[in-house]
Amino acid sequence: MDAATPDQTPPTEDGAGYRAAVVDLLGVLAYGELTGFLRMAADADAAPTLPDKAALGGLAAAEFHHYELLVARLQEMGADPEAAMDPFIAAIDEFHARTRPNGWLEGLVKAYVGDGIATDFYREVSAYVDPSTAALVHSVLENGGQAEFAVQAVRASIERDERIAGRLALWGRRLVGEAISQAQRVAVERDALSSLLVGGHDHGGADLAELGRMFARLTDAHTRRMGRLGLNA
Amino acid sequence: MDAATPDQTPPTEDGAGYRAAVVDLLGVLAYGELTGFLRMAADADAAPTLPDKAALGGLAAAEFHHYELLVARLQEMGADPEAAMDPFIAAIDEFHARTRPNGWLEGLVKAYVGDGIATDFYREVSAYVDPSTAALVHSVLENGGQAEFAVQAVRASIERDERIAGRLALWGRRLVGEAISQAQRVAVERDALSSLLVGGHDHGGADLAELGRMFARLTDAHTRRMGRLGLNA
Repeated sequence: MDAATPDQTPPTEDGAGYRAAVVDLLGVLAYGELTGFLRMAADADAAPTLPDKAALGGLAAAEFHHYELLVARLQEMGADPEAAMDPFIAAIDEFHARTRPNGWLEGLVKAYVGDGIATDFYREVSAYVDPSTAALVHSVLENGGQAEFAVQAVRASIERDERIAGRLALWGRRLVGEAISQAQRVAVERDALSSLLVGGHDHGGADLAELGRMFARLTDAHTRRMGRLGLNA
Repeated sequence: MDAATPDQTPPTEDGAGYRAAVVDLLGVLAYGELTGFLRMAADADAAPTLPDKAALGGLAAAEFHHYELLVARLQEMGADPEAAMDPFIAAIDEFHARTRPNGWLEGLVKAYVGDGIATDFYREVSAYVDPSTAALVHSVLENGGQAEFAVQAVRASIERDERIAGRLALWGRRLVGEAISQAQRVAVERDALSSLLVGGHDHGGADLAELGRMFARLTDAHTRRMGRLGLNA
């Protein structure tokens, strides 16, 4: 990444820093949805039955529609969508490269657990942006039933073979570790985006105590999600 | 396949044979669109650049939407979409298994040439169905710009390295051979569908001379498509 590109200027009290932060937020979300679409389509391909393929295909198509909404908003703002996504490609691609699911069940757990953490995190961030951006972020985070699909399939597999639970619980921990490691990388590299959370421009932000509570909320939600799958976090 | 299932009853002059033929037509189209979506999403994943990924992703999402339209029509007709697709899974899966693209360019040629032949064939068949079914068939065969995308990418590659043209021309011939071989298998196994073309129920059909002209049209169109890619058919 090149420290001289405009999007990486540290945010100031004026509107330019805030705009850069929103472009970052929409850019990382857009690339996340595009890769989410590609991963989900691959899961659909690997699904064992025709109804499973069709169900996951529908969820993949919905993710692509979210990607299109984010690109349209970036264009409305006069931002180049490709340039907005570019700074996040390495981190998101590396997350996926380090967490290639081994089989259909690991793919479902990854989609459920990974999307769950990402959704919670973006919802937290959306508290610090303007209402119109927040509404768009909330709409693209809508989950089209994928969660329920994963919960039922994973629980049914564990009922058939209890030993699966141990392997998938380890997999869930690895996913969280890799997600945190890539998120830290983004936080260090993208000042504008980080400043949405910790303040630094006119839309305010969280203090350290609030950040601590946020991480506690994210962790609690993750533990509950693993529990719904029948797995220890 | 089980010769006792209702969809395989040979069509008669009454409406039941015709209905079975339409269910077959919509079923084979639906499974074709679903697998087309999965293949196109895999091509998007393999695409070398972000704009290519996004463009192919959009075409994949459009194919999934076509699949949904066909499933909705089958449900309107009181047919079970899964049962309607089931007789065609083996032939379509085998076509794809025998024509796995080796790299991005072969994937583009397969999408362009394969979809082109399929589209021409289904348009010919739609001449023998009722106007409402024909309109649906035409709408799901709409090509969202994928053809232009493939033509430009393949021609650009050949300009960079002329030797590619020989390999891709061979690949195009293999695709046609496998498509014909699987289509013959379907024609033998699915009397209702074949009867749409050769007559046998109240919506008429083509005579042998007309079938010959149809195959000539399909072959000519294929040769023109290969030419547009810069390849010998």
